[in-house]
Amino acid sequence: MLKANKHYLELKNSYLFHGIKLRVNAYLEEHPGVELLRLGIGDVTRPLCPAAVEALVRAARDQGDPARFHGYMPECGDENLRAAIARHYEKFGVKIDPEEAFVSSGASDELGDILSLFDPASPALVMEPAYPAYVDASVIVGRRVITLPGTRENGFLPLPEKGLEADLIYLCSPNNPTGAVYDRAGLAAWVDYARARGSVILFDAAYEAFIRDESPHSIFQIPGARECAIEICSLSKTAGFTGTRLGYTVIPKELERDGVNFNRAWVRDRTTRTNGVSYILQQGGLAVFSPEGQRQLEDNLSVYRDNARDLRRALEKAGLWTCGGQNAPYVWAACPVGIDSWSFFDLLLREKQIVATPGAGFGACGEGYMRFSSFASPEVVEEAARRLERL
Amino acid sequence: MLKANKHYLELKNSYLFHGIKLRVNAYLEEHPGVELLRLGIGDVTRPLCPAAVEALVRAARDQGDPARFHGYMPECGDENLRAAIARHYEKFGVKIDPEEAFVSSGASDELGDILSLFDPASPALVMEPAYPAYVDASVIVGRRVITLPGTRENGFLPLPEKGLEADLIYLCSPNNPTGAVYDRAGLAAWVDYARARGSVILFDAAYEAFIRDESPHSIFQIPGARECAIEICSLSKTAGFTGTRLGYTVIPKELERDGVNFNRAWVRDRTTRTNGVSYILQQGGLAVFSPEGQRQLEDNLSVYRDNARDLRRALEKAGLWTCGGQNAPYVWAACPVGIDSWSFFDLLLREKQIVATPGAGFGACGEGYMRFSSFASPEVVEEAARRLERL
Repeated sequence: MLKANKHYLELKNSYLFHGIKLRVNAYLEEHPGVELLRLGIGDVTRPLCPAAVEALVRAARDQGDPARFHGYMPECGDENLRAAIARHYEKFGVKIDPEEAFVSSGASDELGDILSLFDPASPALVMEPAYPAYVDASVIVGRRVITLPGTRENGFLPLPEKGLEADLIYLCSPNNPTGAVYDRAGLAAWVDYARARGSVILFDAAYEAFIRDESPHSIFQIPGARECAIEICSLSKTAGFTGTRLGYTVIPKELERDGVNFNRAWVRDRTTRTNGVSYILQQGGLAVFSPEGQRQLEDNLSVYRDNARDLRRALEKAGLWTCGGQNAPYVWAACPVGIDSWSFFDLLLREKQIVATPGAGFGACGEGYMRFSSFASPEVVEEAARRLERL
Repeated sequence: MLKANKHYLELKNSYLFHGIKLRVNAYLEEHPGVELLRLGIGDVTRPLCPAAVEALVRAARDQGDPARFHGYMPECGDENLRAAIARHYEKFGVKIDPEEAFVSSGASDELGDILSLFDPASPALVMEPAYPAYVDASVIVGRRVITLPGTRENGFLPLPEKGLEADLIYLCSPNNPTGAVYDRAGLAAWVDYARARGSVILFDAAYEAFIRDESPHSIFQIPGARECAIEICSLSKTAGFTGTRLGYTVIPKELERDGVNFNRAWVRDRTTRTNGVSYILQQGGLAVFSPEGQRQLEDNLSVYRDNARDLRRALEKAGLWTCGGQNAPYVWAACPVGIDSWSFFDLLLREKQIVATPGAGFGACGEGYMRFSSFASPEVVEEAARRLERL
């Protein structure tokens, strides 16, 4: 008899965002026709920039033209796109080789896939509150998960503690869900810890484009990170690719453990287990990294930044403690005293017709908090801010 | 110290098609300007059908239009596409629920990803010669691989043997690389074996569109298969999506082992580990399954079918034993007596300027054979056939 992977049975019954959808649908069935203000799931609402759309349309047309048709793409990514990603890193003063940049179908897919590089016996460290897939992807392969609490006291930016035994370290900055951003000293503390112990940091940089102060955009801005980190990034939030799909991963050539060079192993994994990312999508990605694309996507980013500012202000006017929303698209707010996350979720849904994400869904220390996403339209955010102020 | 997945070190040094590329490049450096007749890697050469191109272009435009922009897609696939896949199965007399059809980024990606459902302790059976990724994807997770030899005597269609202990069974029909196709009785023997033992069949149906006789297109045409099989399919060869990327996977709702229901586990896996397949690509897929798309793609299929027929005839005229090429895009030919696969590869490359794929690259019992792909242009195939006849 075939043995199943029984770790699936250890997963909690339903995924956070699925649970929210069920509650929202139930509410809408009771209250047909009500317009909800959706600040829940971190999906973008603004269309792709014109340069990306043009490139996608052109590439789609190529696929119908015998002279310009593209078959299998290189498994690790189109050469030009890998070079464009490497050039993108120069903006942060980081030098990477194009062969260190791998094109992916998106950060969420890659965050699961990349785990294949590591022995499931090595425990993972997740700083809670955290994107639920970090924990679940580890549970699926039977990897033990250690958690480190983010709290109001540490600004939701935990640092390595004495006695901590973490081999695989998930770091997300700007953070989802808290919007907190590590400064250089904070990231350097993690890099030092990882180098001393031989750990590897999985750095989720999906929100780097929202940083406007001196905080690092990339873990590779920290000396020594090339020997202990892999960075996973995405065009989803930067360029609105949530439904278009494209991401990239940086694996330095010198990163190895146990005699396994992770860059070479990932080349071998991708050439074995994929046939590359769609030509059409990679052409769209190339346009995003063009000077024109980079200029255009600032329009969208500035809308979301203003939204985040407005949400934060409204929540503060309502007397709630907040975090994030300045270098991040998420505002993390404490629930009113004595109300837990899911009760506050229900209150916002039923009394304000606002959908937000209960902090408890991101792990135990998210209890008592709520995540507000800035990826809605300015009109929705303006109305939500008006209602939140009067909480 | 983080432990690496040391199974990567057990993989053979380089992937088959990468090895071919190196030899071809070396030849071209010695002989600049030579035009090679490429019948090697199974990449298609004909553009997508007009219906698919139009849909891709329209969907790319949608992503630039605020009113029609699409964010995150459902993780298991667009509802309409899942329904279209279910309708596609009706052509074979197979009834599946749309919730049993999962949209994927392509069969090669899915063949690796799906292994997550099974305990790595359960051995996999691969019938050699086989697509190299079957073996490699198992090696990467430390799964033991049992092989069953395809031979000229069994028509490269091995059947379950007494004493065989296979839990996870890879079946590929029409076969890559041999072009051999199981009939109902052959597939029924495997379904009976799997049901009796509690094994699960991973049925790779990527070439089903090439079947023109009564052979089953789907494992689900065999009674009892719903309790023991998962089918993995692709638009790569059917609709020319090798560089566009789209596939689908069918997991019956009743399939379970060890208390794990594989359909529900896969829903949980996809919702955790992916954010769905690109809206643009899924729109292209929908057009492929439209009546117009299905009519149009017959044009491409018939070119490839004629190519396969011509290659087979030429190889037979040259006195070589052949298999496949009738209900499959590949022709599998015995090398001339006394010549091994790689020597025949070099001979074809150097004396005929033809690139084919050495059978030895598909496992030990592929030694002494060569795979010829029909996915080239008719002009290339015509010239190659002329040269092969005079071998």
